[in-house]
Formats: sequence, C-alpha cells, structure tokens
Amino acid sequence: MTIPDLDAVRAAAQRIAPYAHRTPVLRSHSLDRLADAELHFKAEHLQRVGAFKFRGACNAVFSLDDDQAARGVVTQSSGNHGAAIALACKLRGIAATVVVPRSAPQVKLQAIADFGARIVPCEVAQEDRDRVTAQVLAETGGELIHPFDDARVIAGQGTVALELLQQVDGLDAVIAPVSGGGLLSGTALTVKALKPNIEVWGAEPEGASDAFESLRQQRRITELVPNTICDGLRARLSERTFGILSRHCDGILLAHDDAVRAAMRMVFERLKQVIEPSGAIGLAALLLAAPRFSGKRVGIVLSGGNLDLSRLFPTA
Amino acid sequence: MTIPDLDAVRAAAQRIAPYAHRTPVLRSHSLDRLADAELHFKAEHLQRVGAFKFRGACNAVFSLDDDQAARGVVTQSSGNHGAAIALACKLRGIAATVVVPRSAPQVKLQAIADFGARIVPCEVAQEDRDRVTAQVLAETGGELIHPFDDARVIAGQGTVALELLQQVDGLDAVIAPVSGGGLLSGTALTVKALKPNIEVWGAEPEGASDAFESLRQQRRITELVPNTICDGLRARLSERTFGILSRHCDGILLAHDDAVRAAMRMVFERLKQVIEPSGAIGLAALLLAAPRFSGKRVGIVLSGGNLDLSRLFPTA
Repeated sequence: MTIPDLDAVRAAAQRIAPYAHRTPVLRSHSLDRLADAELHFKAEHLQRVGAFKFRGACNAVFSLDDDQAARGVVTQSSGNHGAAIALACKLRGIAATVVVPRSAPQVKLQAIADFGARIVPCEVAQEDRDRVTAQVLAETGGELIHPFDDARVIAGQGTVALELLQQVDGLDAVIAPVSGGGLLSGTALTVKALKPNIEVWGAEPEGASDAFESLRQQRRITELVPNTICDGLRARLSERTFGILSRHCDGILLAHDDAVRAAMRMVFERLKQVIEPSGAIGLAALLLAAPRFSGKRVGIVLSGGNLDLSRLFPTA
Repeated sequence: MTIPDLDAVRAAAQRIAPYAHRTPVLRSHSLDRLADAELHFKAEHLQRVGAFKFRGACNAVFSLDDDQAARGVVTQSSGNHGAAIALACKLRGIAATVVVPRSAPQVKLQAIADFGARIVPCEVAQEDRDRVTAQVLAETGGELIHPFDDARVIAGQGTVALELLQQVDGLDAVIAPVSGGGLLSGTALTVKALKPNIEVWGAEPEGASDAFESLRQQRRITELVPNTICDGLRARLSERTFGILSRHCDGILLAHDDAVRAAMRMVFERLKQVIEPSGAIGLAALLLAAPRFSGKRVGIVLSGGNLDLSRLFPTA
C-alpha cells in the first residue's frame, strides 16, 4: 500500500502546474473578528471544475505511462471527482469512463459529459457500482483512479497545503474537510513534513463522523450511515487514509448541519464566495471549537463550490 | 459645476489607497466561450462594504478639510453608498448621518449602524428625503456627499477603471452599470483620457432606461418610473453626469430582468462569486448585444455583492 511522501507531493505540484489553478488565499476582517482568529481561506472552490478534486485527478491521470493512458481511465463518482477525472482525461487526450448511480442529479452528469467522458449508469447500491466498475475495467483494460484511496490522488491533494504554506507565513493550524480522507491525508503529510509544529485538523459533519470515531477508537469505523447536508463528505476512510491520519493528523473537529449552513452563509455574505456545504465545514468547525483557535493564525480549505442554486434562481 | 479630470482620478487613487482594496480581475474560460469574447471581470463586489461605492465615498470624506470634517458628513441612501459613507467616516474618525427611508430593509440599516453612523429615518417620497436631509444639514452644519452628483465621488469611482487599465492590457471595451451615472462617468472620463480608442459602454436595466433615453434623445429624461430587480440601478442621471456621459460614453446597452437573473446565475456558477442583480447587468447586456463584442477583449465591472440571501438560507 503506497503512501506518498513530500517528494511525491512536490512532483505532483510540478506535474499539475500547467493545468491546475494556483488558487488565491482570501481574507475577511469581519470573519476574523467573529472567530477571534486570523483566518486564511484557501479558495479551492476556484480550482478547475470548482473543487480541489481536480488536483488529485490531474496528478493521477498525468502519472500514467503511455500504455496505460492508451487504455483510458475508469472511475466511479457522481460528484466532483467524476468531473475532475473527465477534465483531466480531456486535457491529456485520453478516454474516460465514469460509472454513475442513476440517482445522480442531471446537472452533475452534464458536467461530466461536457468534458467528453463516457457515462455508464449503475444502481445506487455499492455492490452494483463495484460490479459495473469491474465490468468496465475488464472490457477496456483501463486504469482505475479511486476518488481518495490512491497514492497519486493523495499526493495531488497535498498540493493544496504545499501552496498554502508558500502563500501564508506563520500558520498555527490548518483545517481541511475529511470524507474519504484524500485531502486531509495529503494536507497532513505535507504540513507535518514541512512544518511539524503546525497543527492539522480535519473537519467532519456530526452526521458522518466515521473519521472522528475511527481516530478516537483507533480502529477504522465503517458501519455509520451518513446523514448530512454535506453531500461531498459522506464517504468513509480507507485503510490507507486511516493509517496516514492516525499518524499525522492532530484530530477531527465536528460540526452539525445548522453550523454548516450558518458558516456557508457567512462565506456568501462576507467573502462573497459561492461554496458548497462541504466547503463550509472547516469554518463551521472552527467557530464551534472556539476558543481553541483564539488568537491563532489558521488556514481553512474551502474545498468546493458546486452547489444547486435552483432555490436562489427558480426557473420561471 | 465641477467635472473631475484624470488628475483628480489619480489624486483619488492615492487618497483612498490606504483604505480601499485593489480588487482583483477575474476570468472564466467557460464564460469566454459563451460570450465568444475575452472577458475581464473587475471584482468590485470584493471592495470594502461589498461595492465600488466605497471608492467615491472614501475619496470625498478624505477630501474634506479639517473644519469641514469636524462638522461631519450627511448623506441620503438606503443602499451601498450609505454604508460606504459610514465606513469612510469611521475610518477618518468623524461623524456621519445617513438619512434613510422607513422602507429600507433592516439588514441595510444594520450595516450602516454597525459602522457607527447616525441613522435618521424619513418617508419614502423624494420630497421628504430632501426635507429631512436639509434639516440635518442645517442642524449639524455638516457636508453633504451625494451618491453620484459630486465631483469627488465621480473621481473616486474613476479609480475602478484606472486600476482595470493597469491590470489588463489591450482592452477593446469597458462596460459599467449606470444608475445615477457616478461610476460610468468616472469610468468614461478615465478611460477616454488614458486610451481614447477603448470603447466605454453603460449597462442599464430596460425597466430603468433613463440614461439610454437621455443619450438617445440628447436631453435629460427624468420622468421614467423604474421597474427592475436591479435595486442599485433605479436613480436618474444628474445634469453633471448627463453632461459627462454625452461627451465621453459610447452608448448604453440595455438588458431585461430575465437576462440579469441568467447572468447573475452564470457568475455564481462559473465564477463562484456572489453578486447582486445590479452587478450582473454588464454581463447580461454584453450577452444580449452579441455579436457586437465578438472576439473582443472586454472589461466588465461587477459593481457590488450585497444581496438578500434569505431565499438560499431560509431561517428555520
């Protein structure tokens, strides 16, 4: 089981540089006052496809050798990873197949199709997703790129923290959302390798707290059924990400959905940025954890901005 | 009647530099493709108080001599100008009085009060606003700073274009919203003084088209009753701004409210930025005016981001 190191993250940064955005770090005086802390928001909702997921997908796709690439890439995802793989494959000029449950919203399918990927529908149950994915892999001989349980993906997600540490001096802590743990693993590996004194915290919905429970009980918890508005944070840790987080992460902060909604609204109103619920979990968790971060300089990853806006813009 | 020139705009830029943000210019590949043009969005929704209005207010407030400043500032506005005056006066440490119609939403009053300004309520009718404003001026001996019919304010708004031309080379056209005409006058004066070949267009709601009609008929039209979702674009040109626009503006583009909503949604979805309806009028007008700007490099001012988000975030 490969675990990426700082060299792998640095290589990923170089590999994705021609394609990925170096996202800005945003500040807000009023949010600083509210949190009694100095907040530096890493704006991954401004990344291509609107989420950090493009970094890991891009690193994985451009890591393939020519033979692998010729056979194409396969993944299963109804969310940002699917779109990220589709765009990365389009940029490399190779085939992408995305296995998507029939329940996925049309708008997400459209984004994947717009990048030229082939969409293969499956049933919602994980067994059927895996069956259909295995079938596509057998047919195409393609390369599976998992949304988070993949060293190339984790190394790509680590470039968020690599940039953040270049952009902001003297951070006391970094907070990143945790779902399957790809982003948080990449963040923890990178931060601890560069600046072991900076704390690395995961932020997780109370209604999908498997990472919190897994670290607390020191064993991987897989039986929880997620219930949260954070649609990007419903996956469970893999053995690989559990191992990385057990070693390198200082802990997991929880936030309930009301706190997520409130934090999301603050980001809309104060930062004037459109983020999805999953992207607000870090701010929500920090505000709930006060005064732990009082007076501290904290980096918070705004992980994505893909949101159903039909309530704000009803179609006539 | 004072008309500012480029030197006044440059002086304003220096005067407000310690207080105002130099806002970024945002890009979107997908919006470029949609518009068949190269679009450069000047992000004034990221300005302090969430709108370009802070530039003009700040320039006017910091232009006062010490005697004037000691007597304080008076304005009438239920919108972004009121908050901008309140913040600028707070930064200079002087008194601000804002005359606000009783119909103004509580959230806007709160923003003004949060900056420490005194709020004086009046009735909605313009006559009552003027009567109450005159009364406050007589009582305080304060300085009136009009939202747009003021050379100091126009010079301050001109700094938007001054920055934009420093940030983007080779623009073919600049589009800015027009209401009372402060921003568009400052934009037109600045652009034509620096680069006379760059076209300057106003963007105005069809339901509040007094600037369009005024320029077309070559006389100031004041009898139209505004009807548009663009709550920041319901004022009429003054003699001063009409004069400036008649000389320096290439024309006014109109957009209906449905086009404004669609453009606003595009900015939310593609740029991930929160803007108010008035801020979307430039993009809406450009898309309707196609193919006029086909293949052109166009600067578009996103003028503000203060929006009622209760539909997106209903209170439980």
